[in-house]
Amino acid sequence: MEHPTTLEHLTTPWERITNENALMSFVDTLLRGCGQVMFQNNPLTGLLILIGIFVNSSLLGITGIIGLVVSTLTALVLRADRSVIRAGLFGFNGILTGIGIAFFLNWNAMLLVYICIASILSSIVMMALSNLLGDRDIPALTAPFVITTWLFLFAVFLFSRLEPSQAIQPALLKPGMSVQTDLRPFPTTLIGSGNTPLNLVEAFFRGIGEVFFQDNLITGVIFLVAILINSRISALFAALGSLVGLLSGLFLLGGNGYWAYHGLYSFNAVLCAIAIGGVFYVLTWQSALYALFCALIATIITASISVLLSPFGMPTLTAPFVLTTWLFILPKAGFRALLPVTLRDVTNPERIRRMYREGALAH
Amino acid sequence: MEHPTTLEHLTTPWERITNENALMSFVDTLLRGCGQVMFQNNPLTGLLILIGIFVNSSLLGITGIIGLVVSTLTALVLRADRSVIRAGLFGFNGILTGIGIAFFLNWNAMLLVYICIASILSSIVMMALSNLLGDRDIPALTAPFVITTWLFLFAVFLFSRLEPSQAIQPALLKPGMSVQTDLRPFPTTLIGSGNTPLNLVEAFFRGIGEVFFQDNLITGVIFLVAILINSRISALFAALGSLVGLLSGLFLLGGNGYWAYHGLYSFNAVLCAIAIGGVFYVLTWQSALYALFCALIATIITASISVLLSPFGMPTLTAPFVLTTWLFILPKAGFRALLPVTLRDVTNPERIRRMYREGALAH
Amino acid sequence: MEHPTTLEHLTTPWERITNENALMSFVDTLLRGCGQVMFQNNPLTGLLILIGIFVNSSLLGITGIIGLVVSTLTALVLRADRSVIRAGLFGFNGILTGIGIAFFLNWNAMLLVYICIASILSSIVMMALSNLLGDRDIPALTAPFVITTWLFLFAVFLFSRLEPSQAIQPALLKPGMSVQTDLRPFPTTLIGSGNTPLNLVEAFFRGIGEVFFQDNLITGVIFLVAILINSRISALFAALGSLVGLLSGLFLLGGNGYWAYHGLYSFNAVLCAIAIGGVFYVLTWQSALYALFCALIATIITASISVLLSPFGMPTLTAPFVLTTWLFILPKAGFRALLPVTLRDVTNPERIRRMYREGALAH
Repeated sequence: MEHPTTLEHLTTPWERITNENALMSFVDTLLRGCGQVMFQNNPLTGLLILIGIFVNSSLLGITGIIGLVVSTLTALVLRADRSVIRAGLFGFNGILTGIGIAFFLNWNAMLLVYICIASILSSIVMMALSNLLGDRDIPALTAPFVITTWLFLFAVFLFSRLEPSQAIQPALLKPGMSVQTDLRPFPTTLIGSGNTPLNLVEAFFRGIGEVFFQDNLITGVIFLVAILINSRISALFAALGSLVGLLSGLFLLGGNGYWAYHGLYSFNAVLCAIAIGGVFYVLTWQSALYALFCALIATIITASISVLLSPFGMPTLTAPFVLTTWLFILPKAGFRALLPVTLRDVTNPERIRRMYREGALAH
Repeated sequence: MEHPTTLEHLTTPWERITNENALMSFVDTLLRGCGQVMFQNNPLTGLLILIGIFVNSSLLGITGIIGLVVSTLTALVLRADRSVIRAGLFGFNGILTGIGIAFFLNWNAMLLVYICIASILSSIVMMALSNLLGDRDIPALTAPFVITTWLFLFAVFLFSRLEPSQAIQPALLKPGMSVQTDLRPFPTTLIGSGNTPLNLVEAFFRGIGEVFFQDNLITGVIFLVAILINSRISALFAALGSLVGLLSGLFLLGGNGYWAYHGLYSFNAVLCAIAIGGVFYVLTWQSALYALFCALIATIITASISVLLSPFGMPTLTAPFVLTTWLFILPKAGFRALLPVTLRDVTNPERIRRMYREGALAH
Repeated sequence: MEHPTTLEHLTTPWERITNENALMSFVDTLLRGCGQVMFQNNPLTGLLILIGIFVNSSLLGITGIIGLVVSTLTALVLRADRSVIRAGLFGFNGILTGIGIAFFLNWNAMLLVYICIASILSSIVMMALSNLLGDRDIPALTAPFVITTWLFLFAVFLFSRLEPSQAIQPALLKPGMSVQTDLRPFPTTLIGSGNTPLNLVEAFFRGIGEVFFQDNLITGVIFLVAILINSRISALFAALGSLVGLLSGLFLLGGNGYWAYHGLYSFNAVLCAIAIGGVFYVLTWQSALYALFCALIATIITASISVLLSPFGMPTLTAPFVLTTWLFILPKAGFRALLPVTLRDVTNPERIRRMYREGALAH
């Protein structure tokens, strides 16, 4: 795990092409943007993720690419730092914004304009948060996507040229209401309900797919492979995060069985587990346990933020991941049982471990 | 535009009077406080704005002056920095707080006490935010007014000695409800509805008047003249902001026609356009476009925050302006296509341009 | 007031025991954690507070101790700074979290697991906020308790294995509804209603007891004695805070008479008055007035945050105290009429005054 992987050698010809050709360099930037949602700065990971999205939905794939392109171009036009743009750090909020807005609003011509405006804003918010948090060495994570998409979704109730879908429905919660805890798809299909192995497998992979709003078994499998290509540690923690979200949400806490089936307790836990399990802390057994606890907290906070948003009918997006991960990153060097990684040193978990062993990490 | 204007010469005798007489110095401080709401540190601008308010409502004029006086005295008693007080930077939140609370609550004797308590708090919040944001060279804007007034308006539902007006009405939004998109006054007057030139002119000027809760054509005209006296650039961007708010709210997004008529999509856009168009960035064609985009985003965020506040029945106040402007100021030097202005160098846009050309701006 | 009190001498044998015995050192840490909720770093104060809680409710006493132990152990296991742990600064959020969650949820086996998870999180949030705010010399106060407990209470509507009690009931407020302003217990007991001396005494002491969710006259008396043991100034301001909350809530603003009786307008004002009156500012007549104004604002903000949380049916906890105190601490040296105390110098108010006179306080 400590030596350069074969894949790193394989990418060398691609790197040469991207260095020589401006268009291919731009394509590489976009693909890295896809990968960065999962903390993987790797164009092949990004390509596989994009394929995974198109397997589930061409419409969401296209709106995602629009968001990706517009947000990246915005950063170029406003002349943000080239190396940050090249690492895909403006694109990853853009692709999520494009998909997120298209997912919750009905399709019409105005939607396209709306997604473009939102994607431009996502890059401005990314720069705003990077400046605000960067001094403290705290990453913006997907907060620019969450803030932009919430602002644009909240607004639609007051604008006639945009149509909210059925998924957005304001309602007060009733504390006495009973929760349907049987693991099952919605609408109930031929598969049948209950904690069957098949349903658990569906729930496990959908939890990974839902990071990009993709409620699809195959997409989840492709995403996990995409992560594995760049980092075995990240893939392991993605899987563990999905498991923690599913098992704690369903069995420990007695959560909603439809939600669990469609991965809605898990996708924030997936991102938390990747982030804490090797990316923002050096992977040790202490940080591994800390990452799993973080995934459990993300599962609870997913429910909290859902309740908080219920009177507005709004989705949590990845806010539970952002909030939880910030809470778990902020302690940093304050907990001497953990080894924090500075933003400048953040690469993939294997390389971080190697650098730590060589004493090459900043303090 | 680069030379001292004739008006700057005219103010010299007034400056001599204010330097010699403590009472006139205090009056000058109060008038600058009025002007600072529109970013104009000019007593004549402040005087005209005050006249504009009284043209529309003596009650709001009086409560505004109470807020202005109490907040400024608070800063003096607690011994804040004299030069900051003298620039009207404690008064501008006070006048808005006085008007804002009186606008949304019914008149009674207790209201006067309530406004005084709120105005004292507004100066404490101003100092709190100045310390919190000042290190990062971020202005507090009207956030002290928004925070104080929200806290005092939210509370009234639980206090019998204060009466909310009809304008405050908690309700859950229904996503399917249709939006009335015809530009028209409410209640519908003899003027008639539709996108007539007269209605568009009304809407344009009311958008400027609503910065101080003044839903009045003449007041809007006076405000625009008041800004023009101090800065042609600010007046231009105030006008452009109102246009962007009106046109994008009504035509691009299909917003509510009553709101558009009464300037409710525009007043936050007006403030955003002034702030970004020449005050916190040196005016260039890039920052001009950035300011117009900022005004568009403020229009959308006005709707978002309205929806967010709907279950509490609370008004947005200038929160959309504060949030949007912070998002557009925070990127600062991170976008090298723009030329940020440090808080210490903030004066009027013409002078900032002159200083930039002379290389006199701090970096 | 400036000389070491007799009680400081009395604690010396106890200090020797805690230095020699690891278990007694841990017990001492726990007791200081109890005391720190009231800003009193004193094990005897903590012991009396614990007794006061058990006088009212053994269940809440036990869940409080669980929260206290788990949060302190978490800080030890993660290897936070020993001196900070020893001062009880991780425990005080844990005890409140344990009591707060048990107070608002019905008892079942899962509740115990839930409290343990929450208490672990409270220590992570404490470290996160200490790092975030410490650079600016702003204390975390009880924000870790508020954040953790809100997240865990909001979530329960979506989890079948946890049961919200009657105290949690989402509802939209109606602006026209009349407020019951007669001071009286709920449910109405033999005592009878009205502003009788007995009812006012009950309300005064319950306001102090409610800091720990203890709606009990005797507990309030014990708490006040517990504070008095460590600091006469803090005890005086605790009493003044309860008076300000009761009198302004009931008479000035016309608040709810049940709330006033049960101390619900007062407990945030109690904490604000202690914090500003001698702890975070050197006690002078200016800071004394500032502290009383802070208590008045806390009373208003208690109503504001209650309204804000009404659609979710959630309690304010000590959020009004945290928000108000932050607003009043942030101005610091910006108001030269006040003498701020740096976090490092925070001890009890008498010692702070003595250090100030000796010129030993940091600037």
